[in-house]
Amino acid sequence: MSDDKKKIYKPKVISGFPEWLPAERMVEQKWFDHIRSVFESYGYCSIETPSVEELDVISAKGEVDKEIYVLERLHKDDEDKSEARLALHFDQTVPLARYVAQHFNELIFPFKRYQMQRVWRGERPQMGRMREFYQCDIDVINVDHLPIHFDAEVAAIIYEVLDGIVGFAKPQLRISNRKILMGLLESIGIEDPVPVTRIIDKLEKIGKQDVAKLLESEGVTSNDAEQILTLVSSRPTTGSGEILDPSTALGMTPKNDQMQEGIEELSFVLDQLSHLPEGAVVADLSIVRGLDYYTGTVYETQLLDVPEFTGSVCSGGRYDDLAGSYINKHLPGVGISIGFSRLFDVMRQTHPDKLGIGRSSPADILMVLPNEEQREAASATARTLRERGYKVEMYHAPQKLKKQLAYAERKGIPYVWFPPFEDGQEHEVKDMANGEQASADPSAWVAG
Amino acid sequence: MSDDKKKIYKPKVISGFPEWLPAERMVEQKWFDHIRSVFESYGYCSIETPSVEELDVISAKGEVDKEIYVLERLHKDDEDKSEARLALHFDQTVPLARYVAQHFNELIFPFKRYQMQRVWRGERPQMGRMREFYQCDIDVINVDHLPIHFDAEVAAIIYEVLDGIVGFAKPQLRISNRKILMGLLESIGIEDPVPVTRIIDKLEKIGKQDVAKLLESEGVTSNDAEQILTLVSSRPTTGSGEILDPSTALGMTPKNDQMQEGIEELSFVLDQLSHLPEGAVVADLSIVRGLDYYTGTVYETQLLDVPEFTGSVCSGGRYDDLAGSYINKHLPGVGISIGFSRLFDVMRQTHPDKLGIGRSSPADILMVLPNEEQREAASATARTLRERGYKVEMYHAPQKLKKQLAYAERKGIPYVWFPPFEDGQEHEVKDMANGEQASADPSAWVAG
Repeated sequence: MSDDKKKIYKPKVISGFPEWLPAERMVEQKWFDHIRSVFESYGYCSIETPSVEELDVISAKGEVDKEIYVLERLHKDDEDKSEARLALHFDQTVPLARYVAQHFNELIFPFKRYQMQRVWRGERPQMGRMREFYQCDIDVINVDHLPIHFDAEVAAIIYEVLDGIVGFAKPQLRISNRKILMGLLESIGIEDPVPVTRIIDKLEKIGKQDVAKLLESEGVTSNDAEQILTLVSSRPTTGSGEILDPSTALGMTPKNDQMQEGIEELSFVLDQLSHLPEGAVVADLSIVRGLDYYTGTVYETQLLDVPEFTGSVCSGGRYDDLAGSYINKHLPGVGISIGFSRLFDVMRQTHPDKLGIGRSSPADILMVLPNEEQREAASATARTLRERGYKVEMYHAPQKLKKQLAYAERKGIPYVWFPPFEDGQEHEVKDMANGEQASADPSAWVAG
Repeated sequence: MSDDKKKIYKPKVISGFPEWLPAERMVEQKWFDHIRSVFESYGYCSIETPSVEELDVISAKGEVDKEIYVLERLHKDDEDKSEARLALHFDQTVPLARYVAQHFNELIFPFKRYQMQRVWRGERPQMGRMREFYQCDIDVINVDHLPIHFDAEVAAIIYEVLDGIVGFAKPQLRISNRKILMGLLESIGIEDPVPVTRIIDKLEKIGKQDVAKLLESEGVTSNDAEQILTLVSSRPTTGSGEILDPSTALGMTPKNDQMQEGIEELSFVLDQLSHLPEGAVVADLSIVRGLDYYTGTVYETQLLDVPEFTGSVCSGGRYDDLAGSYINKHLPGVGISIGFSRLFDVMRQTHPDKLGIGRSSPADILMVLPNEEQREAASATARTLRERGYKVEMYHAPQKLKKQLAYAERKGIPYVWFPPFEDGQEHEVKDMANGEQASADPSAWVAG
């Protein structure tokens, strides 16, 4: 504290830009590691795209309703005006489309990739929404035709991902196929399905009767409204073997080819997922959101044991043409995106113990520094243990043992290693969980 | 190709924002994994900070000479004006300082953290510089006093990091201690060291004679200039045991306490690194850059076998007070930062083979899909192998074997697995490296 008090700029939390303490970050890393390892275990490769795209690329599809952040140089000058405006990406689908178009000749199709990056939304801060967050996306893109196999594969992958990080919360994938409802709507002569699906989307909130009334006000006959409600209320379950005999599962026979195709696709997907535990995957014909974007399979996900998590943990579906705005090729795809940061944030607040948040050091062992004379020997012992795969933090000063132990305790380091305090003594290790201490050989010791 | 030709927006490369193909990205991931694993093996924890800081935080130290990008919402309105301006961080030191100040009461000191994130510089595109790149930083911060132990530890860590990713290029850490030169300059009565160090920095370019002349034009006597040149030309090497007997190593005895302290610190650091291979670390008193920022140990790094890599691969040093702009605490630190993306970019262009760039799939095995009837069995085999830790890509359609093999070949997948083509047959595995094919049991097979 010098006499000339300097100006202190006390930092504030920036709303919507989350930041974790080391103990939380360790769990976040564990989650990322697990997700990556599942993605790669199915042979999906990683890509990363820049944080920015040209504004014209992001808005090539004509929809700029997402809240976009543009970049400007603080010291900009006239030359900046001649450059394309750059915008932070708001999802990983637009960058994937641009990437596939740009590197089309260098990629191997079907192109199976995952991507785990931050995305940005220029939300108003007062809304409490995240403005920077991680998404973990997995997609497969192919040229002209994409086998339905992948619609099942990405679902299996996502279930395995969620089971490994929030299995205790009972994740459940809900799957539907857009063609079924679209086929029905087509068969009853509805030309624009958008207003009808918007009404159906209110089903959970306002109930069947009110939905029927609203449908009728849109010109749907009461008989047709009943058929629609029967369909979107059906929840054929997996594992029965007869899941998609339409007359029993959906309460009606297919009205046209589109509906028939949707039923067959959904049936194939559910069949391919029948190895998953009971309740892991359900068919749910009430999923109508995003139906203008997706063209076949659609996914949503719930945590059955965490009702406080509203909305879908991850969602996705099949799209007919990924990169039509950037390249003259027909590139159908299917994919699912995990809203990673919100999931992590909700779970860390509601279930910190289940997540294992606690330790704030990755070290397995704290190496005690007995005294200056033994520094060299203690360092060498730490190196030996590191070479054997242990993470070893070396204590930095020959302070009182009590202080060194307290440091290990606070950081949650599970073992404390005592190298010889003078030449000729034995090494000892203390297991901090049970307090037991025993002699040990650095080149042979194995953690309990 | 429909009749109504849609508008195609052909994407361009955005200069300064690098992006890799899957094969390069796989190596980049391997590098990140190695760096993280070395950092953690010494007990350093990971943190991540948001991509942005408030502009006032970034400019709290008064230096805004870095090229800063500020964010603006594309659809901004009057309410945006009341919010603090946000800027993308240009390094990880300012965010670390802000993080430590903000979470001071929740952190355990000495705070040992690593950070591997993207940073941004609003450079002019025509300069060919990266505008978005990864840095991998490691720092230790303590309250009031930071033991010199850490100056050696971070150097050992960085050498191990570089040895694991670019060991073939012979990385060499060059270490100095600011106090030695500053002590000498003080002893000869130089009040402002900045112009003198700027002249010394030209040594390599213009040679001793011209440096001496310039020093003399700054009022330094020819005798003092000679002393300065003797000091900054000295390269005491490690491992001699007498490395820092000043009269032999530096050609002079310490002139004052500051110089003596610098010699002792440098001596301790070199001594602690004597287990490293010959040439891994050298003392180099010519390092004078960044001397206004650092207060003791300073580091630079070269790749001896890659002369085309100009500048320092990573650099850092000890600073007296990290977060004085944000909190009224004295927080000395020491750290090193790897300019990851430039290193990776130079090496991928100059040494693609040494880096092992080639495969574009993480899969160990491609599972052949013999026919529709065997899909279920092939999937089950893939699951068995995955449970045993193998990464298995499942082929997506029952196409000709030749096509499935060609796919594995192109992606660089090392093994192709043939499940039974009909019930009762044996499994077989083909090793793509030598073409050998043999029968195998999915629950027992081990990759060669």
